[in-house]
Amino acid sequence: MMIRIGVSARHVHVSDEDLRILFGDGYKLTKKVDLSQPGQYACNEQVVLEGPKGVIQKVRILGPERDKTQVEISRTDSFVLGITPPVRNSGDLEDAAEITIIGPKGKITKNAAIIATRHIHATSMDAKKYGFKDKEFVSIVVKGEKGGILENVYVRISDKFSFEAHLDTDDANAFLINNEDMAELIIK
Amino acid sequence: MMIRIGVSARHVHVSDEDLRILFGDGYKLTKKVDLSQPGQYACNEQVVLEGPKGVIQKVRILGPERDKTQVEISRTDSFVLGITPPVRNSGDLEDAAEITIIGPKGKITKNAAIIATRHIHATSMDAKKYGFKDKEFVSIVVKGEKGGILENVYVRISDKFSFEAHLDTDDANAFLINNEDMAELIIK
Repeated sequence: MMIRIGVSARHVHVSDEDLRILFGDGYKLTKKVDLSQPGQYACNEQVVLEGPKGVIQKVRILGPERDKTQVEISRTDSFVLGITPPVRNSGDLEDAAEITIIGPKGKITKNAAIIATRHIHATSMDAKKYGFKDKEFVSIVVKGEKGGILENVYVRISDKFSFEAHLDTDDANAFLINNEDMAELIIK
Repeated sequence: MMIRIGVSARHVHVSDEDLRILFGDGYKLTKKVDLSQPGQYACNEQVVLEGPKGVIQKVRILGPERDKTQVEISRTDSFVLGITPPVRNSGDLEDAAEITIIGPKGKITKNAAIIATRHIHATSMDAKKYGFKDKEFVSIVVKGEKGGILENVYVRISDKFSFEAHLDTDDANAFLINNEDMAELIIK
């Protein structure tokens, strides 16, 4: 079966509390553009990421606000910053790397940085149709001059989702994948 | 069979003529450290790469001098610079992207930028032992949280080589590979 690829650039999810620190009391996120997953959007707001070795400017916040602030970066980014984030599913900040997030009104330092696990979003209809289960791992086959197989792609099922595989920019750039490319999904 | 991985960071090979332009008449490259391939070395000399969209500082020259100047970058680098280099074997500059190389004494602009094809260096003994041929394509299997299979790995055979697979930093970072890691090589 074929699946659309969404390439996730580095980004930040913020809690209400941290948003106030970064942008000031009473600040609300403003939508720049809707993302492919229903209800998710890229914001106009950007922050700076700082680690012991370097900084990365203009990192976009994705809305809406979440319970916990989470910074999703690539391994390439982690070398620039000088931190060692673990590979984690979104929402799992166990052993997340310490990072400083700088906004126009303030900054926070917390253990919030992860490299996102490769994953697919699917509805229960997609799962039934294609024969995979929530929380199992599947693989993605990519054609082309730098093709191959991306393994350990985590399946997340929710009827709020749109069927799509999310890869980070390291995976995309290694395999010459562009956002919205189609690739083959294989179940073990 | 297992093979050692060498991670190739962005680098530049220079011709005698271009070395003179970049570093001045009569300049000779100076060795910083030997590389794993016999006779190849990283130099103390560094240059700046410039494209229409940005620059990358401190890019190392690898010695010795070559017939043609060649700039090997990752796709991630290509987005920073704003150029679209093709995937090419070392030495093949057909349709190479235009790039400006800036040294302490001068600069050159030429069609010299490529993304290096994934490749392995092997001797004829290695080829015989493991059963692969010059110029064929093999695959590399990587274990781990972001594991998978890197395909289209080009075999280069010379008795001057040391047995090793060369991947760029996009491939390495996508698969959490460190320099000198071992991985499994598979023949189709």
